[in-house]
Amino acid sequence: MKTIGQLLQSKGATVVAVAPGDTVFSALTLMAQHNTGSVLVLEDGRLLGIFSERDYARKVALQEKTSRDMPVREVMTEKVCYVSPSITVDEGMALMTDKHVRHLPVLDAEAKVIGIVSIGDLVKETLSQQKFIIQQLEAYILR
Amino acid sequence: MKTIGQLLQSKGATVVAVAPGDTVFSALTLMAQHNTGSVLVLEDGRLLGIFSERDYARKVALQEKTSRDMPVREVMTEKVCYVSPSITVDEGMALMTDKHVRHLPVLDAEAKVIGIVSIGDLVKETLSQQKFIIQQLEAYILR
Repeated sequence: MKTIGQLLQSKGATVVAVAPGDTVFSALTLMAQHNTGSVLVLEDGRLLGIFSERDYARKVALQEKTSRDMPVREVMTEKVCYVSPSITVDEGMALMTDKHVRHLPVLDAEAKVIGIVSIGDLVKETLSQQKFIIQQLEAYILR
Repeated sequence: MKTIGQLLQSKGATVVAVAPGDTVFSALTLMAQHNTGSVLVLEDGRLLGIFSERDYARKVALQEKTSRDMPVREVMTEKVCYVSPSITVDEGMALMTDKHVRHLPVLDAEAKVIGIVSIGDLVKETLSQQKFIIQQLEAYILR
């Protein structure tokens, strides 16, 4: 069973991040440039929060704010659900389904962010893993 | 293998929709109320488009617009990827991974919208289906 750390190695471990004082507008611009649905909020390498399309849809216009005058720290999600690189793709998948999140930051033993995986990444990997297991089991039966 | 139609029956087929002339702000309000990431845009029961958190993040503030004076029709995604209720959960899953979408409207033979499924719905169902298949195959081997 592949781990999240192994998945990061194959997909590449780009981390798209902003500082807590950056505006929501600049975070959205960065997300569009990297074609991603979320950015991490980092201060001195420490994970302070995560800002996603959902935070923007729920907390900016609906609270009569605008993206240009609002710092990310005011709308980010502070309680971030993160994982260690040693957990398996299946465990990550179950965690995402359970917590209703679409992104999991990956932190090493020193609490340093080493990557992020999305629900799309894990779904793709899970489908191919399960297909492989089923093929193996079927081959065993048909022998 | 379960079909999308069967999945809709078990999860309930609520359709959250707006009219093309409704404002982005009212669509966001409705999405927050129903805790969903997208709404369908319908006119006389006909599917005109889909409006998601991603459309909002990419096309409103970044284009110097505001949610209160902008009709949904100007930012919705018009090319909607939809499915018939007879396709399987696996086919829906593969389609979503391939097209990079998180929601699939379900249309019947008369092009009437009968529901919508999210990537979260399909992931949950796929994980439980695959687990079931693996258990069956293992039971067969161990017999």
